[in-house]
Amino acid sequence: MISETYKAMLAGKSVIREMSEYAQNVLVGGGLLRPEDVFDFSLGNPSVPVPQAFNRRIEELCENGDPMLVHGYSPSLGIPSVRQKIADSLNRRFGMHYTREDLFMTSGAAGALAHAIRLVTSPGDEILTFAPYFPEYGPYAAGAGARLRVVPADTRDFQIRFDALEQMLTPRVQALLINTPNNPSGALYSEDTLARLASLLLEKERAFGHEIWLISDEPYREIVFDGKTAPYVSRFYPRTISCYSFSKSLSVPGERIGYVAVNPESGVSGLLVNMCGQISRGIGHNCPSSIIQLAVADVCDSTADLSVYEKNMNLLFDGLSALGFEMVRPGGTFYLFPKALEEDAGAFCKKAIQYGLVLVPGDTFGAPGYFRIAFCTDTQKVVRSLDAFGRLVREQYR
Amino acid sequence: MISETYKAMLAGKSVIREMSEYAQNVLVGGGLLRPEDVFDFSLGNPSVPVPQAFNRRIEELCENGDPMLVHGYSPSLGIPSVRQKIADSLNRRFGMHYTREDLFMTSGAAGALAHAIRLVTSPGDEILTFAPYFPEYGPYAAGAGARLRVVPADTRDFQIRFDALEQMLTPRVQALLINTPNNPSGALYSEDTLARLASLLLEKERAFGHEIWLISDEPYREIVFDGKTAPYVSRFYPRTISCYSFSKSLSVPGERIGYVAVNPESGVSGLLVNMCGQISRGIGHNCPSSIIQLAVADVCDSTADLSVYEKNMNLLFDGLSALGFEMVRPGGTFYLFPKALEEDAGAFCKKAIQYGLVLVPGDTFGAPGYFRIAFCTDTQKVVRSLDAFGRLVREQYR
Repeated sequence: MISETYKAMLAGKSVIREMSEYAQNVLVGGGLLRPEDVFDFSLGNPSVPVPQAFNRRIEELCENGDPMLVHGYSPSLGIPSVRQKIADSLNRRFGMHYTREDLFMTSGAAGALAHAIRLVTSPGDEILTFAPYFPEYGPYAAGAGARLRVVPADTRDFQIRFDALEQMLTPRVQALLINTPNNPSGALYSEDTLARLASLLLEKERAFGHEIWLISDEPYREIVFDGKTAPYVSRFYPRTISCYSFSKSLSVPGERIGYVAVNPESGVSGLLVNMCGQISRGIGHNCPSSIIQLAVADVCDSTADLSVYEKNMNLLFDGLSALGFEMVRPGGTFYLFPKALEEDAGAFCKKAIQYGLVLVPGDTFGAPGYFRIAFCTDTQKVVRSLDAFGRLVREQYR
Repeated sequence: MISETYKAMLAGKSVIREMSEYAQNVLVGGGLLRPEDVFDFSLGNPSVPVPQAFNRRIEELCENGDPMLVHGYSPSLGIPSVRQKIADSLNRRFGMHYTREDLFMTSGAAGALAHAIRLVTSPGDEILTFAPYFPEYGPYAAGAGARLRVVPADTRDFQIRFDALEQMLTPRVQALLINTPNNPSGALYSEDTLARLASLLLEKERAFGHEIWLISDEPYREIVFDGKTAPYVSRFYPRTISCYSFSKSLSVPGERIGYVAVNPESGVSGLLVNMCGQISRGIGHNCPSSIIQLAVADVCDSTADLSVYEKNMNLLFDGLSALGFEMVRPGGTFYLFPKALEEDAGAFCKKAIQYGLVLVPGDTFGAPGYFRIAFCTDTQKVVRSLDAFGRLVREQYR
C-alpha cells in the first residue's frame, strides 16, 4: 500500500517555492511585471562561481587519475585521505585536535544533520532548536522519530533566550540543534552566548545524569562579515557534533558534499563516526561522490569569492533602515530578517510580491512578524530592489 | 543518549570485509602468501575503466558549463533534462512509455531501493525477497520499518520457487523485491519466470483487495552473457518500481548515481516520484551530484567495456566444472555461486583462504552450502586462481 506518511507530506507545499512560482507564472507570465523587475529573494542559492581550483582539480582527476580510484567506491565513512585533509584544515584553522577517525563524509549539511540526530536520539526523544530556524529541521527530526521543540526567538539580537531555554530543557531533551551564523536571521552567536550555552548544558547533564549533545549546523561558517571569524562551536563544548556543507563556502550546493565532525574530547567520536556508517546503510546513502570528495579535499582551505554577500548586506541594511525597516544587522550568511511592516508577515509578503519583491514570511522559520531576504544575487539587482521596497513602503504603509 | 539501535548494528561485522582483511593482514602480512597469490574474489567492485566519454563530458562541463548550473542545486527529484534523457533511453531500449515525471534520481541502487521500500510499505508491513539475496536488503527494509522475509532458493536454476512463494505471499505482504541478473547467483530471470510472477501477483491482488508492488533491483541489467538482453521487468507488471544504478554499467560505483523509474501504467507514477522527494527530506539526502547527473545523462546509452566479465565467467565456469564443482551457469553479473565442497560453506571458505582464495560463504546471502566468487578482476588473475582452486580440491577434498 502506498505510504500514507509520505503521501501526506506532499500536502505541505513549500511557501518559499510557491512565492517564487507566483512571481514567474502570474506576475511575469501575466504581463504585470517585466522579468528584470522581479527581485527573487526567496531562495538561498549561492550566486558566486565555484573557485577555479575546484574545477581544475576535477579535470585533472578525470585526465590523469586512476579511474578505479577517482570513480570507485568510497569506503562507507568517506575516503581516508579526504577525511585527513579536512581534519588537518580544521585543526589549523580552529585549534581542534581531530583525526580522520572523527570525520564522516556526508551529502551536505542535510545529510550530516539527519545522521547527527539519529546518532544521539531514539524515537520519542526531544531535541530543541531555536527560532528562527531552518524549516527542514522538522523533517530531519521526524525522519529519526525525534520530537523537535522550538525555543522562542530573542528578537532583540537573535542570540539565545536563556530563560525560555532553561524552561524547555527537561530531562527528556537529548540534544540541542543550533545554527550559527543563522538562517534566516543572519545572527552570529557570540563567544559569550556559546560559553553560556555550554555551561548550562554541563550543569543540566550533571542534574539529569545523562549526556546532552550539541548538534551544530554550520553551512554559513565561512560567510562572516566585518573581518570577523565565526567562533568554532565545538571548542566550547565537548559533546559537539559539527555538521558542515561546502555548498556555500565553495558555491557547490548541487555537489552534495559536507561532513560530520565529532569532537574527540567527547571520548566517543570514533564510535559515533562508525555508527554514521550504519545509519547510512538503512537509508541507502553510502557516501558523497568520490570525485567530488577528492576535489573538495584539495581546496578545503579556500572559498569562492564571498565578498559580494557583505556588499549586498550593507546596501540592503542601509537602504532598508533608511526606509524605516527595523532589523538586526547580520553577522554573516546571505540573509536579512527585518520586521514586517504589519503584524501578519504573510500579508506583508503578499503586498511586496506585487512590487516584484519575492520575500519569505518569518512564520516559515518559527518567527512570525518578520520576513527573510535571501540576498545571494547580483549587486545591481539589490540596488534596483531598493526602489521597489521604497514604492512598497510609500504606497502601502504611509 | 547515543542510539542503541545503530550502536548494536556495529556488532554485526561484514563477513565479506573480514575475509578480505584476513587475507591482507594475516596471510600476506605474516609472510604466508605473496601479494600476487591472493585472489580476492570477495568484493563486487567493477574492474573495468569508465567510458572515456564520461570523463570528457565532466571536463567539458567544468571548462565551458555555467558553474551555477553545473554545480548548482538540482531540483529535489533530479535535473529535468537528465530525467528526460534517461526516460528516452529506456523507452528506446525497452519499449516503455516513461516521461521524466516517472523518474527520480538517486544515490545509486541503494538509495533507489531505500526509497522504493518506503514508498509502498508502512512500518510492520512485510516485504518478500528471494534467496540468494544481497544482504543489504535487510538494513534497507529495517530502515523503513518493514519486515523482510526470504523465500528459499530454487537451487536447481536460481529462478523462483513458486510453491514456497505462494505459501509466504499472505495479505500482509505489500511488496516483492527481486534482483535479476542476481547477486550472488548470476541467475537471469527468464521471460517465463517474470510472466508467471506477474500473473501470480495480479491474482493475489484480486484475492487480497490491495495492490502488491514489485521492486526490481537492476544494477546488473547491462551485464548479460551469450549475446542476450535482460528481459525488462517493468514490462511484465504495471506496479513495478525499477531501481537502477550506473555503478556497474559505467564503472562509476563511487559516483553514487542511479534512479527509480515507476511504471506509468500503475497510474500513480507521478505521485510516487513526488513522494520520493518527501522521503529524501527526512533522510537529508537531496540528490546525486549535479555534475554527475549531467554527465551520466549524456552517456546513458553506452556502457564501459564489460566483455571481460563474460570472459572471466567462462574461464571460471569451465575450470571449476573440470575440478568437480557444481554450479548454475550465470546469465549475467560478475558473480558465480558454486556449491561448496562440504556442507558448511563457512568451513569451506576458511580452507580456501589458506590457498589465497578469498570467497564469501552463501550463508551471507541466505543460501547456506554455496559460496560466491566475485570475478570482477583481471583475467590473468582468474586464470592463475584456477591453480589455487586445483590445489584446494586435491589437498583438502580428495
